[in-house]
Amino acid sequence: MAEFDALIKERRSAHNFMEGVSISEKELHAIFEEVKLAPSAFNLQHTQYLVVLDKEKKTAMQKAAFGQYKVHAASAVILVAGDKKAYENAGAIYEGLKMLGILTEYEYEAMVKETVDTYLTRGPVFQRDEAIRNASLSAMLFMLAAKNKGWDTCPMIGFDPQAVKEILELEEHLEPVLMITIGKEKKASRQPRGYRKPVSEFVRYL
Amino acid sequence: MAEFDALIKERRSAHNFMEGVSISEKELHAIFEEVKLAPSAFNLQHTQYLVVLDKEKKTAMQKAAFGQYKVHAASAVILVAGDKKAYENAGAIYEGLKMLGILTEYEYEAMVKETVDTYLTRGPVFQRDEAIRNASLSAMLFMLAAKNKGWDTCPMIGFDPQAVKEILELEEHLEPVLMITIGKEKKASRQPRGYRKPVSEFVRYL
Repeated sequence: MAEFDALIKERRSAHNFMEGVSISEKELHAIFEEVKLAPSAFNLQHTQYLVVLDKEKKTAMQKAAFGQYKVHAASAVILVAGDKKAYENAGAIYEGLKMLGILTEYEYEAMVKETVDTYLTRGPVFQRDEAIRNASLSAMLFMLAAKNKGWDTCPMIGFDPQAVKEILELEEHLEPVLMITIGKEKKASRQPRGYRKPVSEFVRYL
Repeated sequence: MAEFDALIKERRSAHNFMEGVSISEKELHAIFEEVKLAPSAFNLQHTQYLVVLDKEKKTAMQKAAFGQYKVHAASAVILVAGDKKAYENAGAIYEGLKMLGILTEYEYEAMVKETVDTYLTRGPVFQRDEAIRNASLSAMLFMLAAKNKGWDTCPMIGFDPQAVKEILELEEHLEPVLMITIGKEKKASRQPRGYRKPVSEFVRYL
Protein backbone atom coordinates (compact mmCIF):
# COMPACT_ATOMS: atom_id res chain seq x y z
CA MET A 1 0.00 0.00 0.00
CA ALA A 2 1.33 3.35 -1.01
CA GLU A 3 0.42 6.91 -0.22
CA PHE A 4 -1.54 8.53 -3.00
CA ASP A 5 1.01 11.26 -3.80
CA ALA A 6 3.84 8.77 -4.12
CA LEU A 7 1.69 6.36 -6.10
CA ILE A 8 0.71 8.79 -8.83
CA LYS A 9 4.36 9.77 -9.26
CA GLU A 10 5.41 6.13 -9.48
CA ARG A 11 2.72 5.22 -11.99
CA ARG A 12 4.22 5.55 -15.43
CA SER A 13 3.14 4.05 -18.71
CA ALA A 14 5.40 1.03 -19.08
CA HIS A 15 6.78 0.61 -22.56
CA ASN A 16 8.75 -2.55 -21.83
CA PHE A 17 7.73 -5.50 -19.72
CA MET A 18 9.77 -8.34 -18.25
CA GLU A 19 8.92 -11.47 -20.16
CA GLY A 20 7.68 -14.66 -18.56
CA VAL A 21 6.05 -12.99 -15.54
CA SER A 22 2.58 -14.35 -14.97
CA ILE A 23 -0.31 -12.70 -13.20
CA SER A 24 -3.03 -14.82 -11.63
CA GLU A 25 -6.78 -14.33 -11.71
CA LYS A 26 -6.59 -13.95 -7.94
CA GLU A 27 -4.14 -11.04 -8.23
CA LEU A 28 -6.30 -9.42 -10.90
CA HIS A 29 -9.42 -9.95 -8.83
CA ALA A 30 -7.91 -7.95 -5.95
CA ILE A 31 -7.35 -5.04 -8.35
CA PHE A 32 -10.89 -5.26 -9.72
CA GLU A 33 -12.32 -5.24 -6.20
CA GLU A 34 -10.98 -1.67 -5.99
CA VAL A 35 -11.94 -0.71 -9.54
CA LYS A 36 -15.55 -1.39 -8.52
CA LEU A 37 -15.47 1.91 -6.63
CA ALA A 38 -15.10 4.03 -9.76
CA PRO A 39 -17.94 6.50 -10.24
CA SER A 40 -20.23 6.16 -13.26
CA ALA A 41 -23.09 8.21 -14.64
CA PHE A 42 -26.36 7.22 -12.93
CA ASN A 43 -24.27 4.48 -11.27
CA LEU A 44 -24.77 2.38 -14.41
CA GLN A 45 -21.30 0.82 -14.22
CA HIS A 46 -20.82 0.83 -17.98
CA THR A 47 -17.37 -0.77 -17.90
CA GLN A 48 -16.48 -4.34 -18.85
CA TYR A 49 -12.96 -5.76 -18.64
CA LEU A 50 -11.90 -8.61 -20.92
CA VAL A 51 -8.66 -10.02 -19.58
CA VAL A 52 -6.64 -12.04 -22.06
CA LEU A 53 -4.33 -14.56 -20.39
CA ASP A 54 -4.51 -17.33 -23.00
CA LYS A 55 -1.29 -17.45 -25.04
CA GLU A 56 -2.91 -17.94 -28.40
CA LYS A 57 -5.48 -15.18 -27.90
CA LYS A 58 -2.70 -12.90 -26.64
CA THR A 59 -0.78 -13.45 -29.87
CA ALA A 60 -3.91 -12.56 -31.82
CA MET A 61 -4.28 -9.39 -29.72
CA GLN A 62 -0.66 -8.48 -30.46
CA LYS A 63 -1.41 -8.80 -34.15
CA ALA A 64 -4.49 -6.57 -33.73
CA ALA A 65 -2.21 -4.05 -31.99
CA PHE A 66 -0.06 -3.88 -35.13
CA GLY A 67 2.52 -6.27 -33.67
CA GLN A 68 3.48 -4.14 -30.67
CA TYR A 69 5.97 -6.17 -28.67
CA LYS A 70 4.71 -5.06 -25.26
CA VAL A 71 1.49 -6.99 -25.84
CA HIS A 72 3.62 -10.13 -26.13
CA ALA A 73 5.89 -9.32 -23.18
CA ALA A 74 3.13 -8.19 -20.78
CA SER A 75 1.66 -10.64 -18.29
CA ALA A 76 -1.83 -9.96 -19.60
CA VAL A 77 -3.54 -7.75 -22.10
CA ILE A 78 -6.91 -6.28 -21.19
CA LEU A 79 -9.60 -4.78 -23.32
CA VAL A 80 -11.55 -2.10 -21.49
CA ALA A 81 -14.99 -1.87 -23.09
CA GLY A 82 -17.94 0.41 -22.45
CA ASP A 83 -21.56 -0.72 -22.61
CA LYS A 84 -23.60 1.48 -24.92
CA LYS A 85 -26.77 -0.12 -23.55
CA ALA A 86 -25.84 0.18 -19.87
CA TYR A 87 -29.04 2.15 -19.21
CA GLU A 88 -31.01 -1.04 -19.85
CA ASN A 89 -29.64 -2.34 -16.53
CA ALA A 90 -30.89 0.63 -14.49
CA GLY A 91 -33.76 -1.40 -13.04
CA ALA A 92 -31.51 -4.18 -11.77
CA ILE A 93 -28.91 -1.76 -10.37
CA TYR A 94 -31.37 0.39 -8.42
CA GLU A 95 -33.38 -2.59 -7.13
CA GLY A 96 -31.20 -2.91 -4.05
CA LEU A 97 -32.17 0.60 -2.91
CA LYS A 98 -35.82 -0.35 -3.14
CA MET A 99 -35.27 -3.59 -1.25
CA LEU A 100 -33.46 -1.70 1.50
CA GLY A 101 -36.39 0.68 1.74
CA ILE A 102 -34.25 3.67 0.75
CA LEU A 103 -36.44 4.16 -2.29
CA THR A 104 -40.20 3.66 -2.37
CA GLU A 105 -41.65 1.72 -5.29
CA TYR A 106 -42.72 5.06 -6.79
CA GLU A 107 -39.29 6.67 -6.38
CA TYR A 108 -37.65 3.58 -7.81
CA GLU A 109 -39.83 3.62 -10.91
CA ALA A 110 -39.21 7.35 -11.37
CA MET A 111 -35.44 6.91 -11.03
CA VAL A 112 -35.32 4.09 -13.56
CA LYS A 113 -37.48 6.07 -15.96
CA GLU A 114 -35.36 9.21 -15.63
CA THR A 115 -32.19 7.27 -16.38
CA VAL A 116 -33.58 5.37 -19.35
CA ASP A 117 -35.22 8.49 -20.76
CA THR A 118 -31.98 10.45 -20.56
CA TYR A 119 -30.16 7.90 -22.68
CA LEU A 120 -33.02 7.41 -25.14
CA THR A 121 -33.58 11.15 -25.58
CA ARG A 122 -29.92 12.01 -26.04
CA GLY A 123 -29.56 9.12 -28.50
CA PRO A 124 -26.91 6.77 -29.91
CA VAL A 125 -23.99 9.24 -30.09
CA PHE A 126 -24.47 10.08 -26.41
CA GLN A 127 -24.83 6.39 -25.53
CA ARG A 128 -21.49 5.68 -27.20
CA ASP A 129 -19.85 8.77 -25.63
CA GLU A 130 -21.02 7.53 -22.25
CA ALA A 131 -19.46 4.13 -22.89
CA ILE A 132 -16.12 5.78 -23.68
CA ARG A 133 -16.34 8.33 -20.86
CA ASN A 134 -17.27 5.94 -18.08
CA ALA A 135 -14.92 3.17 -19.18
CA SER A 136 -12.07 5.70 -19.21
CA LEU A 137 -12.84 6.90 -15.67
CA SER A 138 -12.74 3.26 -14.59
CA ALA A 139 -9.54 2.53 -16.54
CA MET A 140 -7.65 5.30 -14.74
CA LEU A 141 -8.65 3.78 -11.41
CA PHE A 142 -7.56 0.36 -12.71
CA MET A 143 -4.07 1.64 -13.57
CA LEU A 144 -3.63 3.24 -10.15
CA ALA A 145 -5.00 0.20 -8.28
CA ALA A 146 -2.67 -2.05 -10.29
CA LYS A 147 0.35 0.11 -9.48
CA ASN A 148 -0.65 0.11 -5.82
CA LYS A 149 -0.34 -3.67 -5.92
CA GLY A 150 3.03 -3.59 -7.68
CA TRP A 151 1.90 -3.93 -11.29
CA ASP A 152 2.82 -1.68 -14.19
CA THR A 153 0.44 -0.83 -17.00
CA CYS A 154 0.30 0.88 -20.34
CA PRO A 155 -2.91 2.33 -21.80
CA MET A 156 -3.02 1.84 -25.57
CA ILE A 157 -5.18 3.04 -28.42
CA GLY A 158 -2.94 1.69 -31.20
CA PHE A 159 -5.06 -1.28 -32.21
CA ASP A 160 -7.65 -2.26 -34.79
CA PRO A 161 -11.00 -2.21 -32.93
CA GLN A 162 -12.67 -4.48 -35.49
CA ALA A 163 -9.98 -7.15 -35.16
CA VAL A 164 -10.18 -6.98 -31.36
CA LYS A 165 -13.97 -7.36 -31.48
CA GLU A 166 -13.58 -10.53 -33.53
CA ILE A 167 -10.87 -12.07 -31.34
CA LEU A 168 -12.85 -11.46 -28.17
CA GLU A 169 -16.26 -12.15 -29.77
CA LEU A 170 -17.37 -8.86 -28.32
CA GLU A 171 -21.10 -8.23 -28.23
CA GLU A 172 -22.30 -5.40 -30.45
CA HIS A 173 -23.36 -3.22 -27.49
CA LEU A 174 -19.81 -3.19 -26.10
CA GLU A 175 -17.53 -0.47 -27.41
CA PRO A 176 -13.75 -1.09 -27.32
CA VAL A 177 -12.34 1.89 -25.41
CA LEU A 178 -8.76 1.11 -24.40
CA MET A 179 -6.30 -1.73 -24.45
CA ILE A 180 -4.22 -2.01 -21.29
CA THR A 181 -1.10 -4.12 -21.00
CA ILE A 182 -0.16 -5.16 -17.47
CA GLY A 183 3.02 -6.73 -16.14
CA LYS A 184 6.29 -5.90 -14.46
CA GLU A 185 8.19 -3.08 -16.11
CA LYS A 186 11.65 -3.75 -17.45
CA LYS A 187 13.14 -0.75 -15.70
CA ALA A 188 16.55 -0.94 -17.39
CA SER A 189 15.03 0.20 -20.67
CA ARG A 190 12.80 2.83 -19.13
CA GLN A 191 12.42 6.09 -20.99
CA PRO A 192 12.34 9.40 -19.13
CA ARG A 193 8.85 10.54 -18.14
CA GLY A 194 7.20 12.50 -20.91
CA TYR A 195 7.20 16.27 -20.70
CA ARG A 196 4.18 17.77 -18.98
CA LYS A 197 2.68 21.14 -19.78
CA PRO A 198 2.62 23.64 -16.92
CA VAL A 199 -0.74 23.99 -15.14
CA SER A 200 -1.29 27.44 -16.69
CA GLU A 201 -1.48 25.78 -20.11
CA PHE A 202 -4.34 23.45 -19.27
CA VAL A 203 -6.32 25.32 -16.60
CA ARG A 204 -8.29 28.55 -16.91
CA TYR A 205 -10.04 30.35 -14.08
CA LEU A 206 -13.25 32.14 -14.92
CA MET B 1 -2.07 12.65 2.47
CA ALA B 2 -3.96 9.40 2.50
CA GLU B 3 -3.13 5.85 1.61
CA PHE B 4 -4.50 4.89 -1.76
CA ASP B 5 -6.80 2.11 -0.51
CA ALA B 6 -8.41 4.37 2.06
CA LEU B 7 -8.66 7.25 -0.39
CA ILE B 8 -10.62 5.39 -3.03
CA LYS B 9 -13.05 4.17 -0.39
CA GLU B 10 -13.49 7.71 0.96
CA ARG B 11 -14.02 9.25 -2.45
CA ARG B 12 -17.73 9.34 -3.11
CA SER B 13 -19.75 11.41 -5.50
CA ALA B 14 -21.03 14.25 -3.34
CA HIS B 15 -24.66 15.10 -3.95
CA ASN B 16 -24.86 17.92 -1.42
CA PHE B 17 -22.27 20.56 -0.66
CA MET B 18 -21.92 22.93 2.27
CA GLU B 19 -22.79 26.40 1.06
CA GLY B 20 -20.47 29.37 1.38
CA VAL B 21 -17.22 27.40 1.36
CA SER B 22 -14.72 28.95 -1.00
CA ILE B 23 -11.82 27.29 -2.74
CA SER B 24 -8.82 29.36 -3.82
CA GLU B 25 -6.89 29.22 -7.07
CA LYS B 26 -3.89 28.21 -4.95
CA GLU B 27 -5.72 25.20 -3.55
CA LEU B 28 -6.90 24.24 -7.00
CA HIS B 29 -3.43 24.69 -8.42
CA ALA B 30 -2.04 22.13 -5.96
CA ILE B 31 -4.59 19.61 -7.24
CA PHE B 32 -3.77 20.35 -10.88
CA GLU B 33 -0.05 19.88 -10.19
CA GLU B 34 -0.93 16.24 -9.57
CA VAL B 35 -3.44 15.94 -12.40
CA LYS B 36 -0.56 16.76 -14.74
CA LEU B 37 0.68 13.23 -14.21
CA ALA B 38 -2.31 11.60 -15.91
CA PRO B 39 -1.37 9.51 -18.93
CA SER B 40 -2.59 10.52 -22.38
CA ALA B 41 -2.35 8.97 -25.82
CA PHE B 42 0.94 9.97 -27.46
CA ASN B 43 1.41 12.20 -24.39
CA LEU B 44 -0.72 14.81 -26.14
CA GLN B 45 -2.34 16.02 -22.91
CA HIS B 46 -5.73 16.58 -24.51
CA THR B 47 -7.41 17.83 -21.34
CA GLN B 48 -8.37 21.41 -20.52
CA TYR B 49 -10.02 22.48 -17.26
CA LEU B 50 -12.24 25.55 -17.12
CA VAL B 51 -12.78 26.43 -13.50
CA VAL B 52 -15.77 28.63 -12.80
CA LEU B 53 -15.43 30.66 -9.60
CA ASP B 54 -17.25 33.81 -10.69
CA LYS B 55 -20.71 33.97 -9.08
CA GLU B 56 -22.57 35.13 -12.13
CA LYS B 57 -20.99 32.56 -14.43
CA LYS B 58 -21.67 29.87 -11.82
CA THR B 59 -25.35 30.77 -11.85
CA ALA B 60 -25.33 30.48 -15.64
CA MET B 61 -23.66 27.06 -15.34
CA GLN B 62 -26.33 25.97 -12.88
CA LYS B 63 -28.97 26.93 -15.40
CA ALA B 64 -27.12 24.96 -18.10
CA ALA B 65 -27.16 21.99 -15.68
CA PHE B 66 -30.96 22.13 -15.58
CA GLY B 67 -30.93 24.03 -12.30
CA GLN B 68 -29.16 21.36 -10.23
CA TYR B 69 -28.71 22.81 -6.76
CA LYS B 70 -25.28 21.29 -6.18
CA VAL B 71 -23.82 23.57 -8.86
CA HIS B 72 -24.94 26.51 -6.75
CA ALA B 73 -23.80 25.05 -3.43
CA ALA B 74 -20.41 23.80 -4.62
CA SER B 75 -17.30 25.93 -4.13
CA ALA B 76 -16.53 25.78 -7.84
CA VAL B 77 -17.88 24.15 -10.95
CA ILE B 78 -15.41 22.87 -13.50
CA LEU B 79 -15.84 21.96 -17.11
CA VAL B 80 -13.48 19.20 -18.21
CA ALA B 81 -12.95 19.53 -21.94
CA GLY B 82 -10.99 17.46 -24.43
CA ASP B 83 -9.04 18.92 -27.32
CA LYS B 84 -10.05 17.30 -30.62
CA LYS B 85 -7.03 18.93 -32.26
CA ALA B 86 -4.50 17.96 -29.57
CA TYR B 87 -2.36 16.21 -32.20
CA GLU B 88 -1.54 19.62 -33.67
CA ASN B 89 0.58 20.24 -30.55
CA ALA B 90 2.71 17.11 -31.00
CA GLY B 91 5.68 19.13 -32.29
CA ALA B 92 5.74 21.44 -29.28
CA ILE B 93 5.26 18.61 -26.77
CA TYR B 94 8.05 16.40 -28.13
CA GLU B 95 10.50 19.28 -28.63
CA GLY B 96 11.91 18.91 -25.13
CA LEU B 97 13.05 15.37 -25.90
CA LYS B 98 14.95 16.67 -28.91
CA MET B 99 16.50 19.49 -26.92
CA LEU B 100 17.64 17.02 -24.25
CA GLY B 101 19.25 14.89 -26.94
CA ILE B 102 16.96 11.94 -26.18
CA LEU B 103 15.61 12.13 -29.71
CA THR B 104 17.63 12.98 -32.78
CA GLU B 105 16.19 15.48 -35.23
CA TYR B 106 15.23 12.55 -37.45
CA GLU B 107 13.55 10.59 -34.66
CA TYR B 108 11.73 13.72 -33.55
CA GLU B 109 10.34 14.37 -37.02
CA ALA B 110 9.28 10.72 -37.35
CA MET B 111 7.55 10.77 -33.98
CA VAL B 112 5.61 13.94 -34.74
CA LYS B 113 4.63 12.59 -38.15
CA GLU B 114 3.45 9.25 -36.72
CA THR B 115 1.26 10.99 -34.16
CA VAL B 116 -0.28 13.46 -36.57
CA ASP B 117 -0.82 10.77 -39.21
CA THR B 118 -2.62 8.52 -36.71
CA TYR B 119 -5.16 11.22 -35.92
CA LEU B 120 -5.59 12.34 -39.52
CA THR B 121 -5.97 8.80 -40.83
CA ARG B 122 -8.44 7.69 -38.17
CA GLY B 123 -10.43 10.89 -38.71
CA PRO B 124 -12.84 13.20 -36.87
CA VAL B 125 -14.80 10.54 -34.94
CA PHE B 126 -11.56 9.17 -33.51
CA GLN B 127 -10.31 12.70 -32.74
CA ARG B 128 -13.46 13.35 -30.75
CA ASP B 129 -13.33 9.92 -29.06
CA GLU B 130 -9.77 10.69 -28.02
CA ALA B 131 -10.85 14.01 -26.52
CA ILE B 132 -13.49 12.22 -24.42
CA ARG B 133 -11.25 9.28 -23.52
CA ASN B 134 -8.21 11.25 -22.43
CA ALA B 135 -10.18 13.95 -20.62
CA SER B 136 -11.98 11.21 -18.68
CA LEU B 137 -8.72 9.54 -17.63
CA SER B 138 -7.55 12.93 -16.39
CA ALA B 139 -10.87 13.67 -14.64
CA MET B 140 -10.64 10.50 -12.56
CA LEU B 141 -7.19 11.54 -11.37
CA PHE B 142 -8.58 15.01 -10.61
CA MET B 143 -11.31 13.59 -8.37
CA LEU B 144 -8.86 11.43 -6.45
CA ALA B 145 -6.28 14.22 -6.10
CA ALA B 146 -9.03 16.56 -4.87
CA LYS B 147 -10.19 14.03 -2.29
CA ASN B 148 -6.60 13.54 -1.17
CA LYS B 149 -6.52 17.25 -0.35
CA GLY B 150 -9.85 17.14 1.49
CA TRP B 151 -12.21 18.19 -1.29
CA ASP B 152 -15.31 16.35 -2.44
CA THR B 153 -16.42 16.18 -6.04
CA CYS B 154 -19.28 15.05 -8.21
CA PRO B 155 -18.85 14.15 -11.90
CA MET B 156 -21.89 15.24 -13.90
CA ILE B 157 -23.20 14.73 -17.41
CA GLY B 158 -26.60 16.28 -16.84
CA PHE B 159 -26.03 19.56 -18.62
CA ASP B 160 -26.67 21.17 -21.99
CA PRO B 161 -23.29 21.12 -23.81
CA GLN B 162 -24.31 23.91 -26.18
CA ALA B 163 -25.27 26.24 -23.34
CA VAL B 164 -22.00 25.48 -21.52
CA LYS B 165 -19.99 26.21 -24.66
CA GLU B 166 -21.64 29.60 -24.91
CA ILE B 167 -21.17 30.53 -21.25
CA LEU B 168 -17.50 29.60 -21.32
CA GLU B 169 -16.91 30.85 -24.87
CA LEU B 170 -15.38 27.46 -25.57
CA GLU B 171 -13.30 27.17 -28.72
CA GLU B 172 -14.73 24.84 -31.37
CA HIS B 173 -11.89 22.31 -31.02
CA LEU B 174 -12.68 21.76 -27.33
CA GLU B 175 -15.28 19.08 -26.58
CA PRO B 176 -17.22 19.34 -23.29
CA VAL B 177 -16.66 15.99 -21.57
CA LEU B 178 -17.73 16.28 -17.94
CA MET B 179 -18.86 18.86 -15.46
CA ILE B 180 -17.34 18.44 -12.00
CA THR B 181 -18.62 20.19 -8.90
CA ILE B 182 -16.10 20.55 -6.08
CA GLY B 183 -16.59 21.61 -2.48
CA LYS B 184 -17.06 20.24 1.01
CA GLU B 185 -19.73 17.57 1.23
CA LYS B 186 -22.68 18.13 3.53
CA LYS B 187 -22.28 14.76 5.19
CA ALA B 188 -25.54 14.91 7.16
CA SER B 189 -27.54 14.48 3.97
CA ARG B 190 -25.26 11.84 2.51
CA GLN B 191 -26.90 8.98 0.68
CA PRO B 192 -25.60 5.42 1.05
CA ARG B 193 -22.95 4.46 -1.51
CA GLY B 194 -24.52 3.13 -4.67
CA TYR B 195 -24.70 -0.61 -5.17
CA ARG B 196 -21.74 -2.10 -7.00
CA LYS B 197 -21.89 -5.16 -9.23
CA PRO B 198 -19.70 -8.07 -8.14
CA VAL B 199 -16.40 -8.41 -10.05
CA SER B 200 -17.70 -11.49 -11.87
CA GLU B 201 -20.29 -9.31 -13.60
CA PHE B 202 -17.82 -6.89 -15.14
CA VAL B 203 -14.69 -8.99 -15.68
CA ARG B 204 -14.16 -11.96 -18.01
CA TYR B 205 -10.99 -14.02 -18.25
CA LEU B 206 -10.07 -15.38 -21.66
